[in-house]
Amino acid sequence: MAITDYLFGRRLATYEEGEQRAGVLAGIPMLGLDALGSAAYGPEAALTLLIPLGAAGLGYIGPISTLIIIILLIVYFSYRQTIAAYPHGGGSYTVARENLGTTAGLLAAAALMLDYVLVVAVGISAGVGALVSALPVLQPYTLGLCLAILALLTVVNLRGVRESGIAFVVPTYLFIATLLAVLAYGALKALAAGGHPAPVVAPAELPQAQMAGSRWIFMRAFASGCTAMTGVEAVSNGVTAFRVPTVPHARKTLTAIIMILAVMLAGIAYLCRAYNIGATEPGQSGYQSILSQLVAAVVGRGIFYYITIGSVLCVLALSANTGFADFPRLCRIVAQDGFMPRGFAHRGRRLVYSHGILVLAGLSAGLLIGFGGITDNLIPLFAVGAFLAFTLSQAGMVEHWRRAGGEHAGKSMAINATGAVCTAVTLVVVLVSKFAEGAWVVILLIPALIVLFTSVHHHYQFVARQLASSEPLDAQALQPPVVLLPIGSWNAITRKAMRFALGLSPDLYALHIAGDEHAMVALEDGWKTLVMEPTRAAGVPAPKLIVVYSPYRRLYLPLKDAVTELRSAHPERDIAVIIPQLIGTRWYHVLLHNQTGVLFEAYLRLSGFRRVIVINVPWYLVK
Amino acid sequence: MAITDYLFGRRLATYEEGEQRAGVLAGIPMLGLDALGSAAYGPEAALTLLIPLGAAGLGYIGPISTLIIIILLIVYFSYRQTIAAYPHGGGSYTVARENLGTTAGLLAAAALMLDYVLVVAVGISAGVGALVSALPVLQPYTLGLCLAILALLTVVNLRGVRESGIAFVVPTYLFIATLLAVLAYGALKALAAGGHPAPVVAPAELPQAQMAGSRWIFMRAFASGCTAMTGVEAVSNGVTAFRVPTVPHARKTLTAIIMILAVMLAGIAYLCRAYNIGATEPGQSGYQSILSQLVAAVVGRGIFYYITIGSVLCVLALSANTGFADFPRLCRIVAQDGFMPRGFAHRGRRLVYSHGILVLAGLSAGLLIGFGGITDNLIPLFAVGAFLAFTLSQAGMVEHWRRAGGEHAGKSMAINATGAVCTAVTLVVVLVSKFAEGAWVVILLIPALIVLFTSVHHHYQFVARQLASSEPLDAQALQPPVVLLPIGSWNAITRKAMRFALGLSPDLYALHIAGDEHAMVALEDGWKTLVMEPTRAAGVPAPKLIVVYSPYRRLYLPLKDAVTELRSAHPERDIAVIIPQLIGTRWYHVLLHNQTGVLFEAYLRLSGFRRVIVINVPWYLVK
Repeated sequence: MAITDYLFGRRLATYEEGEQRAGVLAGIPMLGLDALGSAAYGPEAALTLLIPLGAAGLGYIGPISTLIIIILLIVYFSYRQTIAAYPHGGGSYTVARENLGTTAGLLAAAALMLDYVLVVAVGISAGVGALVSALPVLQPYTLGLCLAILALLTVVNLRGVRESGIAFVVPTYLFIATLLAVLAYGALKALAAGGHPAPVVAPAELPQAQMAGSRWIFMRAFASGCTAMTGVEAVSNGVTAFRVPTVPHARKTLTAIIMILAVMLAGIAYLCRAYNIGATEPGQSGYQSILSQLVAAVVGRGIFYYITIGSVLCVLALSANTGFADFPRLCRIVAQDGFMPRGFAHRGRRLVYSHGILVLAGLSAGLLIGFGGITDNLIPLFAVGAFLAFTLSQAGMVEHWRRAGGEHAGKSMAINATGAVCTAVTLVVVLVSKFAEGAWVVILLIPALIVLFTSVHHHYQFVARQLASSEPLDAQALQPPVVLLPIGSWNAITRKAMRFALGLSPDLYALHIAGDEHAMVALEDGWKTLVMEPTRAAGVPAPKLIVVYSPYRRLYLPLKDAVTELRSAHPERDIAVIIPQLIGTRWYHVLLHNQTGVLFEAYLRLSGFRRVIVINVPWYLVK
Repeated sequence: MAITDYLFGRRLATYEEGEQRAGVLAGIPMLGLDALGSAAYGPEAALTLLIPLGAAGLGYIGPISTLIIIILLIVYFSYRQTIAAYPHGGGSYTVARENLGTTAGLLAAAALMLDYVLVVAVGISAGVGALVSALPVLQPYTLGLCLAILALLTVVNLRGVRESGIAFVVPTYLFIATLLAVLAYGALKALAAGGHPAPVVAPAELPQAQMAGSRWIFMRAFASGCTAMTGVEAVSNGVTAFRVPTVPHARKTLTAIIMILAVMLAGIAYLCRAYNIGATEPGQSGYQSILSQLVAAVVGRGIFYYITIGSVLCVLALSANTGFADFPRLCRIVAQDGFMPRGFAHRGRRLVYSHGILVLAGLSAGLLIGFGGITDNLIPLFAVGAFLAFTLSQAGMVEHWRRAGGEHAGKSMAINATGAVCTAVTLVVVLVSKFAEGAWVVILLIPALIVLFTSVHHHYQFVARQLASSEPLDAQALQPPVVLLPIGSWNAITRKAMRFALGLSPDLYALHIAGDEHAMVALEDGWKTLVMEPTRAAGVPAPKLIVVYSPYRRLYLPLKDAVTELRSAHPERDIAVIIPQLIGTRWYHVLLHNQTGVLFEAYLRLSGFRRVIVINVPWYLVK
C-alpha cells in the first residue's frame, strides 16, 4: 500500500491524537482562514451590486462596512461566551440542540452543512478570481483551475489536520502581513494627500451611472457584503482541535481573527473611497478583483503586488480548508446522534473523517461546475446558512444562561440576546433581498436535509426494534451448510477451495459452467482420478459434480438455477457458495483478478436469496 | 433496484444480442458521427492556424481541402477492402496484430485508444463551441456544459447500443440535410453572383496580416485540417454491429459516410473563399465558429440558422458517441488477448462494456478539464493516433494480401499499399508540425501504454504458471475451520450468526470488543442463560467468550490480536471470521449499515493473514 501511504501519509493510531492539536498560531490558519479570506470577497460582493450606480456607488461602501463591522463585533462577544460554555466544541448544532430541542439543532446542522459546502466553493472560486486578475491569460481555464485546487485540498485533508495546519501557516501570515502593510501604507498616502492620493496604477474606470441609489440597492449590497462575516463560528465549533487548556487558546485565536478581519474591512472600505475603486463585471474578460486594483493602486504592479496577490490566492483557496476542517466534524456529531449514516462517525486513515471529506469534495465540485467557477454566482446562496446558524446558536445560548442561572447569567444572557437579535435581523434582510437570486434554493434545501436527517433516525430506530432479542441461542439440531463451489478448471485454487469446502460440510456440490466443450470434457475426464479416488481413499463423501453447458458464457443463470435447486432440495439448511479469490502481491492486482467472483458475489447478494451465504476463500499469489 | 433500471434500462439477456444490430440507416449515426462531425472542426482547425495571415490565409484553404479529400478517398478504398477481408471486425488492432505481429497490434491499439479519448473530448468541446457561438452569454460555462454533455452521453451509453442509435438518428440526418442544403444554396448564390456573393449577415472581419505565408504554415494548417479525417476507421472496426449480411451493410455505410464528408469539406472550403470567412480566436469573447459564420452568411440568423447550429451542436457532441461505441469494443478484444485487465472483457448491464465506458468517460473528463473545454487546445494531440492506426492497418492489409495470394491479390495489395504510404506520409507531417504543440504527449503516452499492456500480459502468464496443478485433491485429515465471531451485543443478528457458526465448527470463539463497561457486564451476565445453557442442553461444545476492554473504541487491534492468537494456537487449521451483515429492504440502506463489518473485512484482507477466511452471514431486514 505504498502509494496510499505516500499520498495520504502514514496511518495514525488513536493514541497519537493528542499530538495533533493546535495552539493559537496554528489555530489561526486552521480555523480562521475562512473568516479572514472573506475580507477578499465580502467587500467585492457588495461593490459588484453597486456597479450600476457608477461613481455614486462608492458612497455606500463606508456605511455598509461600518454596519458589517458592528455586527461582527457583537457576534464576536457572543461567540466568546459560547467557547467558555462549551469547551468540548460548541457548534451551533450542539448549542441549539441542547437548549432549544432536536429540531432547532437539526436546522442549525443543515444550515451549517450548506454553508461549509459554499465556503469551499466560494473560497476556491474567489482565489482563482484573484489569480485570473493577475494573469488574464488563464481566464478560459477558470473552472479547471478551481477543480484542480479542490482536488489538491481534498488530498491534503485526507492526510490529516496537523500537516494541513503547517502547510497553511506561511501563506496565511504572508497574506495578513502584506495586506495590512498595503492598507496601512495606502492609508498614510491618502492622509498625506488630503484624502485623494494619486494611484500608482490607475484602477478600472468607474462606469456611467445607470440607475439612482435606493434603500433596496443598499439592502442588497449590504446582504452581499455580509458574506464577509461567514466563518466566524469556526473557532467555537472546533474548540477540541486546540491544545489544552483549550478555552483560552480558542478565545485568543477568535480575538485575533476578528480584530484582523475588522481592520481589513475598514481599511478596504476607506481605500476604495480614497482611490475610487469599484468592482468590474465578474466572468467577463477585463475582470479585475477589488484587491488586485487596490494593491496595484497603492504599490504598483511590481514584485510586491505579485507576492500579495499570490498570498490572496493561497489564502482564498485555502479558506476552503475551514470547510474541510469543520464539515466532517459536524457530520460526525450528527451521525453519532443517529441522524446521519453511521459511516460519517468513523475515523478514516490519519484520524480524520474520510466520509465527510469525500462528500464535501463531491458537493463542492458540483457547485463549482454548476456555477462555472464564478464567485459572484455563488454569493446569493451564501450567508443565509451562516446567519441562520448564528441566530440559532445565540438563541440557544440565551436559553443556556436562563437555565444555568448564577450571578453573571443576566449579563451573559444580554450579550447573547443582542447577538441573536442582530443576526436574526440580518438573516431576514439577506433572505428578502437575495430570495429571487438564489436564496430560495437554500430555503428548499434546508427542510429537505431535515427530512433526510429525520428519516435516517427513524430507520435506525426501526432496525433497532427488529434486532432487539432476548431469546437464547437455538443450539438444537445443528447442521453444516450445503456447500456449492463453482469451478472453472482444475488448478491450485480449485484444489485448495475444495479441501476447505470438504472441511465445512459433507454435502458438497461442484458447479462447472462450461463455455467450451474441450474444457468440459477435460474436467469430466479428470474428475475420477483428481477427486473421486482421493475422497474414497480418505473415507469421506465425494463431492457431486454438476456440469452446465452454456455456450454463450452466460454465467449467472446457471448459478442461479443451481442455488434455487439446492434451496428447494434442502429447505431447512443454509447454502454456502464458495468463491475462490486470488490475492495479488501488489495493491493494483485487484484490477486484474476476481472480476467474475466479485460479480457472482454481488449477484447473489442482490438476488436476495435467504439462507444463502457467500464465502470468499483467498489464495495468495507467491512473489 | 428500480432507479438503476430507470437510468440504464432493463437488463438484457445474452440471447437478445442479435436484435441489437444496425442496418445502413442506423449505422451512419452509430459509427459515422465522428467522421461527419469532423467536418465542423477540421476546416476550422486549419483556418485557425491561418489567422495570422489575414485575408491571404483564405487562399490556402482550397489546396489544403483538396489534398485532404484526396487522402480521404484513398483511405476509403483501402478500408473497403479491410471490411471484406475482416467481416468479424477488422479494427486496426486485429489487422496489425494478425499480419504484422503482436507489437504492431499493440501499437495500433494504443494509438486508437488515445484517439477515441480525444474523439470524445474534441467532439464535445467543439459542440459546446457551436453553442457558445450562437449564445455568447453561455461562454463562461463552457467547461461545465462540456462535462454535463459527457455525463449525459455516459448514461446513454450505459443503457446500450440500440437506444443510442435511435436517439442519434434525428440530429444526424437533420445535420446532414441542413448543412448540405446551406452549402448547395450558398454555392448557387455564389455562382449566380460570379463568385463573390453578398452575405446576409457579414462574417467576422478578417484581421490584418501579421506574417507572410510559408510552406511551414501550410504544413501546420494541413496537419490541423487532417483532424477532418478522424473517425473513418470506425466502420471497419465495428462490422459486427451490423445486421447480417454484415459486409455489404458495412461497406454501404462507409461509402455513404465518406461521400457526404467529402462533399461537406469541399463545400465549406469553397464557401469560405467565396464569402471571405476566416477563423476567430478560440476561447476569447467574440469567438464565432466557422460553420456559424458560414450559415449566417448564406441564410441569415433566422430560424433556419438556429436549427442548423442546433443540429451541429448535437452531432458534434454526439460524434463523441463513436468513441463510446468503439473504445469499449477495442478494450474487450485487447483484454480477451490478455493485454488488459479481464474486467474489460465482461459485458455489463445491457450488453455493453461498462468498464470501458466508465474509463473512457473518466479520461475524457480529465482532458476536458485540463484543456478548459477548448477544442483548439486539443487539436495538436489529435490525428497522430488516428494516422498511426491508419498506417498500421493498411500496412497489415498489404501483408494480408501477400499471404492470401490469388488473382486479385496484386490489385488489392496495390490499393492498400497506396493507402499505407499516403497515411504514413501524413503521419510524419502531422508529427513534425505538431510536435512542440502537443504531439510529443502522444509520443510519450503510446510507448507507456504498450509497456502497460505487456506487463499485464506477463502478470497473467505468471499467475497461470502458479495456478497450474494436476495434483489430485488432498482429502486426508479434513478438519472444520476454527471460527471467530465478533459480537457487539446480544440481538437477533448475533443469535442467527452464532447458530450458523456452531453448524460450521465445534471450535467457536466469540469476541466482544467492549467500548463501555455497561455493555460488557450486560453481555457477560447474559452469557450463561443465553448461550451456555442452550448448548449444554443440546449436547454441543459451548462457544468460548473472549472479552477485550478497549475504552477508546479501537477495534482493529483487538481483532488482529485475537486472529493472531488463534493462528498460533491452531497452526494447521483455517480460521474463519464471521461478519454478520444486515441486508436492508432498499438499495440505499447499504449507506446506513455494516460500515464496521466492511472495514473489518477490508482490514483482514489487507493484513494478508494466510489461512484466514471471511464469511458474511446476511440478516434480512423485514419491511
